[in-house]
Amino acid sequence: MEQEIKFSVVIGAFGDQADRFCLDGYKNINKTLEQLFIDASKIKDLSGVELVGNIDMPDKEVQDIKRLKEKYNLDITCIVVDIFTRAYWGRGSITSKDKSVRQRAIDGIKRYMDIAKELDCNLLDIWPGQDGYDYYFQSDYLKDIKNMVLGLKECADYRINVKIGLEFKIKEPRTHCYMSSIGKTLFLLDKINKENVGIIVDVGHSLFAYENMAETVALCKYAGNKLFHLHLNDNYGYWDDDMMIGSVHIPEYLELLYWLKKIDYSGWYSLDIFPYREDGIKAVNESIQMLKSMISAINNIDKEEIENIISSGDATKALALIRRMLFK
Amino acid sequence: MEQEIKFSVVIGAFGDQADRFCLDGYKNINKTLEQLFIDASKIKDLSGVELVGNIDMPDKEVQDIKRLKEKYNLDITCIVVDIFTRAYWGRGSITSKDKSVRQRAIDGIKRYMDIAKELDCNLLDIWPGQDGYDYYFQSDYLKDIKNMVLGLKECADYRINVKIGLEFKIKEPRTHCYMSSIGKTLFLLDKINKENVGIIVDVGHSLFAYENMAETVALCKYAGNKLFHLHLNDNYGYWDDDMMIGSVHIPEYLELLYWLKKIDYSGWYSLDIFPYREDGIKAVNESIQMLKSMISAINNIDKEEIENIISSGDATKALALIRRMLFK
Amino acid sequence: MEQEIKFSVVIGAFGDQADRFCLDGYKNINKTLEQLFIDASKIKDLSGVELVGNIDMPDKEVQDIKRLKEKYNLDITCIVVDIFTRAYWGRGSITSKDKSVRQRAIDGIKRYMDIAKELDCNLLDIWPGQDGYDYYFQSDYLKDIKNMVLGLKECADYRINVKIGLEFKIKEPRTHCYMSSIGKTLFLLDKINKENVGIIVDVGHSLFAYENMAETVALCKYAGNKLFHLHLNDNYGYWDDDMMIGSVHIPEYLELLYWLKKIDYSGWYSLDIFPYREDGIKAVNESIQMLKSMISAINNIDKEEIENIISSGDATKALALIRRMLFK
Amino acid sequence: MEQEIKFSVVIGAFGDQADRFCLDGYKNINKTLEQLFIDASKIKDLSGVELVGNIDMPDKEVQDIKRLKEKYNLDITCIVVDIFTRAYWGRGSITSKDKSVRQRAIDGIKRYMDIAKELDCNLLDIWPGQDGYDYYFQSDYLKDIKNMVLGLKECADYRINVKIGLEFKIKEPRTHCYMSSIGKTLFLLDKINKENVGIIVDVGHSLFAYENMAETVALCKYAGNKLFHLHLNDNYGYWDDDMMIGSVHIPEYLELLYWLKKIDYSGWYSLDIFPYREDGIKAVNESIQMLKSMISAINNIDKEEIENIISSGDATKALALIRRMLFK
Repeated sequence: MEQEIKFSVVIGAFGDQADRFCLDGYKNINKTLEQLFIDASKIKDLSGVELVGNIDMPDKEVQDIKRLKEKYNLDITCIVVDIFTRAYWGRGSITSKDKSVRQRAIDGIKRYMDIAKELDCNLLDIWPGQDGYDYYFQSDYLKDIKNMVLGLKECADYRINVKIGLEFKIKEPRTHCYMSSIGKTLFLLDKINKENVGIIVDVGHSLFAYENMAETVALCKYAGNKLFHLHLNDNYGYWDDDMMIGSVHIPEYLELLYWLKKIDYSGWYSLDIFPYREDGIKAVNESIQMLKSMISAINNIDKEEIENIISSGDATKALALIRRMLFK
Repeated sequence: MEQEIKFSVVIGAFGDQADRFCLDGYKNINKTLEQLFIDASKIKDLSGVELVGNIDMPDKEVQDIKRLKEKYNLDITCIVVDIFTRAYWGRGSITSKDKSVRQRAIDGIKRYMDIAKELDCNLLDIWPGQDGYDYYFQSDYLKDIKNMVLGLKECADYRINVKIGLEFKIKEPRTHCYMSSIGKTLFLLDKINKENVGIIVDVGHSLFAYENMAETVALCKYAGNKLFHLHLNDNYGYWDDDMMIGSVHIPEYLELLYWLKKIDYSGWYSLDIFPYREDGIKAVNESIQMLKSMISAINNIDKEEIENIISSGDATKALALIRRMLFK
Repeated sequence: MEQEIKFSVVIGAFGDQADRFCLDGYKNINKTLEQLFIDASKIKDLSGVELVGNIDMPDKEVQDIKRLKEKYNLDITCIVVDIFTRAYWGRGSITSKDKSVRQRAIDGIKRYMDIAKELDCNLLDIWPGQDGYDYYFQSDYLKDIKNMVLGLKECADYRINVKIGLEFKIKEPRTHCYMSSIGKTLFLLDKINKENVGIIVDVGHSLFAYENMAETVALCKYAGNKLFHLHLNDNYGYWDDDMMIGSVHIPEYLELLYWLKKIDYSGWYSLDIFPYREDGIKAVNESIQMLKSMISAINNIDKEEIENIISSGDATKALALIRRMLFK
Repeated sequence: MEQEIKFSVVIGAFGDQADRFCLDGYKNINKTLEQLFIDASKIKDLSGVELVGNIDMPDKEVQDIKRLKEKYNLDITCIVVDIFTRAYWGRGSITSKDKSVRQRAIDGIKRYMDIAKELDCNLLDIWPGQDGYDYYFQSDYLKDIKNMVLGLKECADYRINVKIGLEFKIKEPRTHCYMSSIGKTLFLLDKINKENVGIIVDVGHSLFAYENMAETVALCKYAGNKLFHLHLNDNYGYWDDDMMIGSVHIPEYLELLYWLKKIDYSGWYSLDIFPYREDGIKAVNESIQMLKSMISAINNIDKEEIENIISSGDATKALALIRRMLFK
């Protein structure tokens, strides 16, 4: 029997999206949080949402989220702690050269561990996107990596019943981010060495770091069931385009989805897309339909048969397998 | 009624493939030309083959090819003039700093225009892969580009009833090749300004120069029906991996195949793959099956409907279209 | 005698810089236009500035710019017509599927041709950054390219005494921009075929499209003195990082600067940098000092000697030349 | 007092270089091993050479190398065990699906541990370039990674007084290599967990995996002095071009060389270049001169001053520092 797949989305997908040229956004819309929940609730395949939370979020707002999540019957699947959208994070959060900024980041993460419990959520997404550098001779790599490990250890110890998922990304907004790739993050994980710290694979980040998404999730398995969560989207392989799923990488997605099944991943399939010029609801819905079609294509073929092809190492059989999944 | 698609292949796909580390090839096979023809003849969807021809090919060999092509009932769809595999081409052919090398290249191309006619073939592939540079301050870009245009003009005039297809590629074997992209080649085409000179799009070269293959063939159309021929393969987008078709880029291929139909391309669908570690016959055959499946998926949807989606510019509809082509 | 180099800067370098994650900017500053002019006037090597101009700029503002330019004794070297920062440009300007948007773009460009004259400036920068596409099956490449050529022809004819410089860029904000590379832009130039239309090379755009900047400006020369203007910055080669000059590419810059001299480029050396986390004045000043140091290093070596090395094609000599320029 | 730098080279740089198009090499030379040693001995700054050793090397040849190394007074700094140039390695060595091939690789590595001692060399370079995959659904990532760790553990235990340096590379000859990046290799190192296993950083491999070379060596330090050896070359950042040093990346090299000093790296500075179309002796010599010039430029500036700039995190100061290193 196939496992039931649960879909979630980073709720910002229903809002406006901007970039450095069009700073006011491409849609000229300004939705309230409740409107975003309403949009999410319209998509029948969705059963959860993710939020990005600023560290100064007032308690009142937390209560409001609690209300909305119940009203619209949506789980809070993960909270992305905002250590990247404000000017004061611009030169780093947990690896800032400024001790007070590092502490602010750590305190913010701890506070969100409390908030998470309050919202029946047991996973934080820590994406240290501003923690890196842009120019040569600008950073002491040794000091910074030590601070990163120390800071994350401290957070992990604060509440062992909330999971911390590390989300890696090779660049943007810095030209070089410290937590860059699956390899580096697994290495850091060894140094941090805490049960409740694992990985959130944003598959787009994998793609544009020239990783193979399936191998990436397999490595999380190898490291001891460290795949805590998934962010799904697509891109052209050179930048974090955050496109709708399946726009570019169909065979790669088929293999990923097969491996998620193979390693018994039981977490959420959470979308993280930026539909800059598209209708958010349609973009999320179409992405889910694509995922469901691909999952169904995989499930239509006997697992043993797939394993035999993989074991053979024969690329012509592998391609024929992909063709069968897609065209009949 | 759908147009009939004719498939061809660069015949080396059935031989051995080597690279700079494994110079003797991955297969330890050493087939005669006839054996390559035999392999090609085993694939029922193939009706033509392409050859790479060294400029010193003896007439006897030409006669041999003629015999083989007839014996195995295969068209010679295109001849790639070898201006790239010998040490003496290492620093350029038609743009060499050495006048005698430039002349040798031009003479070789002319000779192949004669040979082409002899083989009932009316298309040469000119890929100036060694014409470029590797280091800064190593080349006089102005002189070289002038020589390229002059040389190609001279060739074009030699026999106006043989077509010269320019095949662009951004790099490899040089780190920078002059005939790098569709844009640059169309610009050169304007300067050359000859009826019988056009473009051969190797779609893999497009892909790893961050072109969109469909836009690339559309531009050939815009330039005045200048798409003379196609080389089909696939890659990961960063290098000329010369993989089997559909291994990586399914949606991009669907769009390409649609546009070939839209611009009434009536030439060959010729494979140029390097199945380093795969059986050549299986690799070619699987590539053709993938192409046929994709073409059929496109033809199953009404052209007007596709045109309406394109006209709408709505990416969510475009993705739904791709999903319908693939999954039902 | 060496030609005098004139430096300019896109004036936004002195303001705040934002990106899609930190939308309010990394500096928390909000300078008036006059403050930006004051900043520019503090850098003694600067004699001009560039502005980005929204198509709805009131006449009053034009008069204000005129006043500032005179007060601070700075030339307006170029005006970048804003066809990319507003939501209504999001799906294209001169190639929009919506005729009224296309007309709005054309009218805006024409209006800026008038404004340019008013400001003693004779060059517009047309960067159609939103003119492209993100997804497959989303665009009719043939229609769009025809509209681009038609629109630019109409603009060019409006005032033949104002130059239009086309600035190409391969991606961002669209994943695929039509005016992508030097080759494509030169091809379009042939189709537009107007005296007053030429090229603005943003060298960073060249770099991350895997062009060699020196070859790119040489091609502009080859096309008939079509290098109208330069945007200078640096990046890591994969994205438009808009970094300070010389941060990454020193040998490539040396070759570029040599070729600008070789082709007798007499225009401005205009900086287009985004010092997100840096002080704008220091970043612009340091970039200019780097440029001056590199130009001086080139001028210290006899031109004939450099030409001999280039003619030899010997990369070891070329590298020794670079070493001599840098280290003694 | 500055530490003395010792230079070495992979000896093949003096021979011929070939690629997949020009399989017979660009130089038409065929030197004996002794001739390569003679070439190396002509470069006064060289005091060591590296060899690539086929696993079937006869003992007689080992004795010959011993004789040559003494005759020409050159250290054997490292031996690269050939697990990548023969057809039988084509689908992997230590991760081959075929147990007998895995054993052959392990046995070959062990044999070279013996040979190394015989040649007064205490370092092997293990570069599993064929261990990876090309197509989706072609490999069992979990099995393969387990075999890699097991195999390397077995080798490490064989002789604890010979060091094994793991050389990572993201691709080529496979489109995806398992030992891809510094992060992944450090993670594997943790799993292998042997004193005598560490890292060989080929800086070109770092570059084209979008790593910063200085950060990469810093991470080796952080992992416990795990930088065993260096391979130096340069490239354009997208492929392993194996160019002469300083051809492209000057500021990045300055930072790297500074960090090697900062982390007290005391090993060899070994060149690994492919001068396809250049004279080998000149190419090696020019690379060393460039290195020496860069090292001297760094040493001319007070270490404390550099540290202060790094601590400030101010990119404008960092760039001014680079400018001072280069232009005065």
